Amino acid sequence: MHGLMQNHPLLVSSLIEHAGNAHPHAEVVSRTLEGRMHRCTYADIERRSKRVANALTALGVSPGARVGTLAWNGYRHLELFFGVSGMGAVLHTVNPRLFPEQLAYIINHAEDRYLFLDACFVPLVEKLAPQLTTVKAFVVMAGRPVEAASTTLDLCYYEELIAAHSDDYRWPQLDENAASSLCYTSGTTGNPKGVLYSHRSTVLHTMLLCMADAFALTAVDSVLLASPMFHVNAWGIPYAATMVGARLLLPGAALDGASLYQLMRDEQATAAAGVPTVWLMLQQYVHTQSLRPLEELALRRIIVGGAAVPRAVVETFERLFGAHVLHAWGMTETSPVATVCRPLRKHLEYSAAERIDLQRKQGRVPYGVALRIADESGAVLAHDGVASGRLLVRGHWVASAYYGDEAGAILDADGWFDTGDIATIDPDGYMQITDRAKDVIKSGGEWISSIDLENAAVDHPAVAEAAAIGLPHPVWQERPLLVVVRKTGHDVTKDELLAHLSERVAKWWLPNEIVFVAELPHTATGKLQKMVLREMFKQHRFDA
Amino acid sequence: MHGLMQNHPLLVSSLIEHAGNAHPHAEVVSRTLEGRMHRCTYADIERRSKRVANALTALGVSPGARVGTLAWNGYRHLELFFGVSGMGAVLHTVNPRLFPEQLAYIINHAEDRYLFLDACFVPLVEKLAPQLTTVKAFVVMAGRPVEAASTTLDLCYYEELIAAHSDDYRWPQLDENAASSLCYTSGTTGNPKGVLYSHRSTVLHTMLLCMADAFALTAVDSVLLASPMFHVNAWGIPYAATMVGARLLLPGAALDGASLYQLMRDEQATAAAGVPTVWLMLQQYVHTQSLRPLEELALRRIIVGGAAVPRAVVETFERLFGAHVLHAWGMTETSPVATVCRPLRKHLEYSAAERIDLQRKQGRVPYGVALRIADESGAVLAHDGVASGRLLVRGHWVASAYYGDEAGAILDADGWFDTGDIATIDPDGYMQITDRAKDVIKSGGEWISSIDLENAAVDHPAVAEAAAIGLPHPVWQERPLLVVVRKTGHDVTKDELLAHLSERVAKWWLPNEIVFVAELPHTATGKLQKMVLREMFKQHRFDA
Repeated sequence: MHGLMQNHPLLVSSLIEHAGNAHPHAEVVSRTLEGRMHRCTYADIERRSKRVANALTALGVSPGARVGTLAWNGYRHLELFFGVSGMGAVLHTVNPRLFPEQLAYIINHAEDRYLFLDACFVPLVEKLAPQLTTVKAFVVMAGRPVEAASTTLDLCYYEELIAAHSDDYRWPQLDENAASSLCYTSGTTGNPKGVLYSHRSTVLHTMLLCMADAFALTAVDSVLLASPMFHVNAWGIPYAATMVGARLLLPGAALDGASLYQLMRDEQATAAAGVPTVWLMLQQYVHTQSLRPLEELALRRIIVGGAAVPRAVVETFERLFGAHVLHAWGMTETSPVATVCRPLRKHLEYSAAERIDLQRKQGRVPYGVALRIADESGAVLAHDGVASGRLLVRGHWVASAYYGDEAGAILDADGWFDTGDIATIDPDGYMQITDRAKDVIKSGGEWISSIDLENAAVDHPAVAEAAAIGLPHPVWQERPLLVVVRKTGHDVTKDELLAHLSERVAKWWLPNEIVFVAELPHTATGKLQKMVLREMFKQHRFDA
Repeated sequence: MHGLMQNHPLLVSSLIEHAGNAHPHAEVVSRTLEGRMHRCTYADIERRSKRVANALTALGVSPGARVGTLAWNGYRHLELFFGVSGMGAVLHTVNPRLFPEQLAYIINHAEDRYLFLDACFVPLVEKLAPQLTTVKAFVVMAGRPVEAASTTLDLCYYEELIAAHSDDYRWPQLDENAASSLCYTSGTTGNPKGVLYSHRSTVLHTMLLCMADAFALTAVDSVLLASPMFHVNAWGIPYAATMVGARLLLPGAALDGASLYQLMRDEQATAAAGVPTVWLMLQQYVHTQSLRPLEELALRRIIVGGAAVPRAVVETFERLFGAHVLHAWGMTETSPVATVCRPLRKHLEYSAAERIDLQRKQGRVPYGVALRIADESGAVLAHDGVASGRLLVRGHWVASAYYGDEAGAILDADGWFDTGDIATIDPDGYMQITDRAKDVIKSGGEWISSIDLENAAVDHPAVAEAAAIGLPHPVWQERPLLVVVRKTGHDVTKDELLAHLSERVAKWWLPNEIVFVAELPHTATGKLQKMVLREMFKQHRFDA
């Protein structure tokens, strides 16, 4: 027997439709590429995204067709989030920081029909264009500025395109399981893989983000979005801000400390989201300029994801900014939020130091996500905070296959997705990533967490960055090599660092060797490339 | 093209399954009918709800069959919320305060197969039983106490029933559109009507409740549930607390001020939900006992619904309790939450008095609900805070038909449900109920809001309760009669009250007559029975 309730599909368009009706005056504030501030409202975003939908329809974009973007965080990008998905096409947000061959691979693999790009990416696209096999036209997200004119490409201009179309449009009532957007993982190995989100998974994930035990966005918030809209749709926050009518602050390409601080201060941001690197730069700027954020800003919380948060970052935000650091974890395959580090009742009695220890964990699952850890044979391990194993995830907003595959292709027999991470889960459900499965160091049948070793090293005041890799050892199978970048102007010796580490990790975890280098290899998205590091040190051997 | 995401049905069982996994140690604290405190955890609730599911299966309860409850708020009732709906049957929470003939009508109309009842309702059920045509057995929610023994009925006992079954059970993966629970509206006219919720509508509504801009429940909350679980499933809060692992405080039948205060203090409740009457009684108790709730309690917010909140109640909670009054509105047909009175950014600059004015409004729609107002011809009216019209609602958790009807039976051509309320909506989207459609007083072609008149009267310190009804008038069609109950120990004359009203409402709204009475007629759920009042005054005529 069915219930007798109304049944509306969970559609991306319903988010902007709601904002247009319920929060027409709430603002979207963008820093343009030219550095000007642009202000508009959700009502404007809805009207213009309807023009986008009409324009795409006129261009012959059919439901399910992919439309790519190469763009920073700005209001036109937001309009494409709703205009493209809302009319039934698939929004493919491409990361412009990738290497050109990866960009060409991704755009061709997705078969993007149109590519919308910020004017600053015209030179990049000029170079890419000869390799792109499916793109019918390039639309520059601007008026028709002289600077962006291309010698080789016939470009369209966003404002001209949408000005030619009406904002009279009814969002189609699509199947909620239809694809809404596509993001490629920027893996450290192999070709990028596409994750194809559905309208339903997007809306459910958006509801999660607005929960008080997740990002807790509300209509009184002003949210600074320092996570790029091409990184898993900026973690879904553009959708979440729209769902609750929060003021949205879009910083464009200016993610340096000075620009972010100015935007936070001028627009009185209450929340901000970004990777640790962005916040380190901001804190450094505040420090060098001797600013007083507690007095000048209205910041209440900083949402951090993408990597573990250094302890000093948490402490500085608490002390100097009066802002709570909210740590979340996920990946492209999990939309991305799979855990949020929110406290339980028992933690209310924690000391400040204990609370900060907790805040640095990846957190616990919200409703809609389940986690388990398993050993290499697939046996499920205890949630005791000690046993570490491959982290498996399932839930409403977790991928079942990569783009081009059959649904379910990447799930095990019980429907779990293997994250490729190694983690522990404590009895309270707090998950902590200890390593990537491929980076774990296997010493005498036991695992050494490369991440724990690196974190312990970075705790030293003279260490800027550290990477631990396993190298072959005649007795122990593998032993750790630690590769360290010193902070400029600081010094530390091998012996000093070993003494520092020996207070923080088990004796048998101590690296057999420490090498100091000028810099470590990274991917375009800032991930450490351990594969390159292993290649660099492949001749290295430990003696028995 | 479909997205490639996992697709799990949105099921009521997934809530308790999540709590069992992610919040196994979070507590459910119940005051039993005997006055003892009972403590258990969500892990216990899940295990015992699985026993319920196995027991119902053994009893031959098939998917879609209705299982009734006549019970106060307690852990066994919570187990039935998950056990009954989780195994595919339909939980029908019956309001024991209804008149016996209504109870018999509702139980027979729902065709309840089993009826679970608190021991205190055995005498009531003994009287009802001869009229009940579908109930195969009565299960007393207790062990086998001597007091509850019945002379005429062959009773089963909950603890015996579930002890005979295992907690080894896998929740079936039902269709998310299947019916999960059934609540009858306690209308003031006609037969009660059943609203049949689906698993999907329930889970989406639960996600709403956990949003920061709705009830904002989290795992650090201890929620006192003073709204009965037979009133629209206690507004969905049992599901919401389970979704986030909030501690749940269930007061049983003891809703008096002393009992609630004790429970709040002993268990350090952070949030509480109930109708204004309950909070008036609590405040009165605190006042007469000269208690210091600010020091003794941990209360942060009071969730109020079911009727407009008197200004004094809001002020007292702010001042004396340090708790924020969160006003929500809805009806059985809306699951119930359709609006929540949360501020917008602009309201942060409001004075305390302006903020309290705002808090007394019914609030604005969250994502998932849309409102409009229409005149009697069906023309949509402006959201200007002035135009008042019939309030129409649509959304993910809004009914499409009453139980026994075809889906869509109560919706207009565009899919809107007519609430039967008259309301205004201001430019910021805040909705305010001005009347029930059938209670509005039509004077010279204009509408006088009976609710506004009543609220203005109750603002007088000597007025306990007031009811305004329209009576025929030879010139103006209708004119208001105000029927007033004085507070014990207080006095006020007609002229004094008219003088008071003339400062609060338009001159042409002033009642043509004021009548003082000892008490006003109410339904079993405490709603004013204007129909009875009109009957009482039907001989009354105004002169030209």
